[in-house]
Amino acid sequence: MASSVTLSVDGMGGDHAPEAIVAGVDVFAQQNPTIPILLHGDEAALNALLVQFSAAKAVCKVIHAAEIVPMDAKPSQAMRKKGTSMWNAIASVSAGNTGALMAVSHLQLRTIEGLHRPAITASWPTARGSSVVLDVGANVDSDPEQLVDFAIMGEAFCKALYGIHQPTIGLLNVGAEEAKGHDDIREAMRLLRLYGALLDLDVRGFVEGNDISLGTTDVVVTDGFTGNIALKTAEGAARLVGVFLKEALTSNPLSMAGAFLASSGLKKLKERMDPSNLNGGVFLGLNGLVVKSHGGTNAKGFATALSIASKLAASSYLSEVKANLARLIAARASETSAAIPVVEDQTA
Amino acid sequence: MASSVTLSVDGMGGDHAPEAIVAGVDVFAQQNPTIPILLHGDEAALNALLVQFSAAKAVCKVIHAAEIVPMDAKPSQAMRKKGTSMWNAIASVSAGNTGALMAVSHLQLRTIEGLHRPAITASWPTARGSSVVLDVGANVDSDPEQLVDFAIMGEAFCKALYGIHQPTIGLLNVGAEEAKGHDDIREAMRLLRLYGALLDLDVRGFVEGNDISLGTTDVVVTDGFTGNIALKTAEGAARLVGVFLKEALTSNPLSMAGAFLASSGLKKLKERMDPSNLNGGVFLGLNGLVVKSHGGTNAKGFATALSIASKLAASSYLSEVKANLARLIAARASETSAAIPVVEDQTA
Repeated sequence: MASSVTLSVDGMGGDHAPEAIVAGVDVFAQQNPTIPILLHGDEAALNALLVQFSAAKAVCKVIHAAEIVPMDAKPSQAMRKKGTSMWNAIASVSAGNTGALMAVSHLQLRTIEGLHRPAITASWPTARGSSVVLDVGANVDSDPEQLVDFAIMGEAFCKALYGIHQPTIGLLNVGAEEAKGHDDIREAMRLLRLYGALLDLDVRGFVEGNDISLGTTDVVVTDGFTGNIALKTAEGAARLVGVFLKEALTSNPLSMAGAFLASSGLKKLKERMDPSNLNGGVFLGLNGLVVKSHGGTNAKGFATALSIASKLAASSYLSEVKANLARLIAARASETSAAIPVVEDQTA
Repeated sequence: MASSVTLSVDGMGGDHAPEAIVAGVDVFAQQNPTIPILLHGDEAALNALLVQFSAAKAVCKVIHAAEIVPMDAKPSQAMRKKGTSMWNAIASVSAGNTGALMAVSHLQLRTIEGLHRPAITASWPTARGSSVVLDVGANVDSDPEQLVDFAIMGEAFCKALYGIHQPTIGLLNVGAEEAKGHDDIREAMRLLRLYGALLDLDVRGFVEGNDISLGTTDVVVTDGFTGNIALKTAEGAARLVGVFLKEALTSNPLSMAGAFLASSGLKKLKERMDPSNLNGGVFLGLNGLVVKSHGGTNAKGFATALSIASKLAASSYLSEVKANLARLIAARASETSAAIPVVEDQTA
């Protein structure tokens, strides 16, 4: 059975490339033997690795790229190097430098017409399952109109990837009350309610930091500065609890014996907390799909990123976003005429 | 032995007031029987409670306040109500509404001359002990000069409360590299390095979200919007790990038996994660000391907030900040003349 989806993979990006990349492709290919993969990078190195991974070898076509983008490259430098492995691996999956990948992706794919800027998602584990948080780092600041864009992209992403019929949307703020936060965030909420009503979005209002892990809404919208810091802060806090747990369970012989008895349960916890289960930030807002894997991920984590890419590529995400955008553009154009009374009502 | 410190306590603020407040005062008074406390609020209700708490009764003087500030009050409304329990409890400890407490504190105590705005601290548990994060919610936005103020206040706070000789300072950003983040945060770093050298501050550079729990620096400086979201997001993530742990340890009989055996270790973990151990956000930047207890705290948590207030009141914090500010003001004034070459060096 031929697949309609093709994945384009940067074989040289990430801390453990190309080994972890090829191993991850192999894990993915074992479960998805009909999806062809274009593997970009050093031909000799990649071919030598593929000999060891038969499932990967069966689906991969190696495309030589002479140069690689080093992890500490500045985006502007990366863009000057045509023929890097990242450059050829657009519409695809890469574990390389985020800024460079975004710059190259943006140049190659362009932003969807009507959108201000692309955003990066994070899949966030919650008490209810998982939520989508965006932007977590594509932009260092965002105006209210951009936050509305993020809501539209995040909602379509949630529908496409998780099959949620009507995803709920929250806007991250310092309090849930409507009067909280700075002018920009309150203006974003006003616009979100205004356009949300026209686009049939389920806008729930402001959410606070602790609401993310509670899973209060399916989509959490925020600017890239706050979102990036929130994501890394949560990862750090979760890791610290893990350290404290380990210390507690090795603090005396009885606790150590207990931990040994409870090892199956603790293994489940470790599995659940494993960041490779949720690896894969998606660049939304481009005319194509780009998934950024964590640079330090292992084979399992990279396979997760490939899985997200293949699911999204097979979904209606891009057409969904474009349809909503067309309606948003029409709404924005008419805001200066018919919609004005609504705007004034909201700020009265 | 007479104490030079007097605490002024809002008896009516918080979700479980006045019961949890008086119980918290009692816990504190048992350990600090020589520190007098002015207890503001409904005289009849407070006196009736004090009968049950002999240690609290021995140190408290009840000061009647007819009205209380309800938890959902808008700051502007609270300020109009003179004679509320919060109003009388300035330079003190309250578990009432944060915005109202800040508004009232600001009006009564005024900002220290030379400082732009007050900030609220959070004591953050880390792999190394604990760090101070500010601002976590006094302001919804902050310009670069204000972030420098926060660094100065946080550094003096760290010296005074934790006795750290030379606290290290980090500025929260989306990456550790100097080129990361938006213009404001990079300008803040430039100023922080410039003034930090003059004031002998140990400025380490940018830190990322995960650095907070790692304890990379003693002081983490951020704007109130980002700081508030980071704090609540971390609390939510830590709580979620706790939920996952509980589920893992009750997932099968063997794990349940193991958890029973390990109960002393797990109890230590619970103790360590107990938010009441770190309860007490301090309002810095005012001509006086105000400690905000979490509204939902218990007696132990409120006693922690009282303990922070008494330690700070007995410390050299206020004089330390004022001395640094005087030098900062002089440096800012001379920036337009002698300091210009230094500024140009930094941006070259």
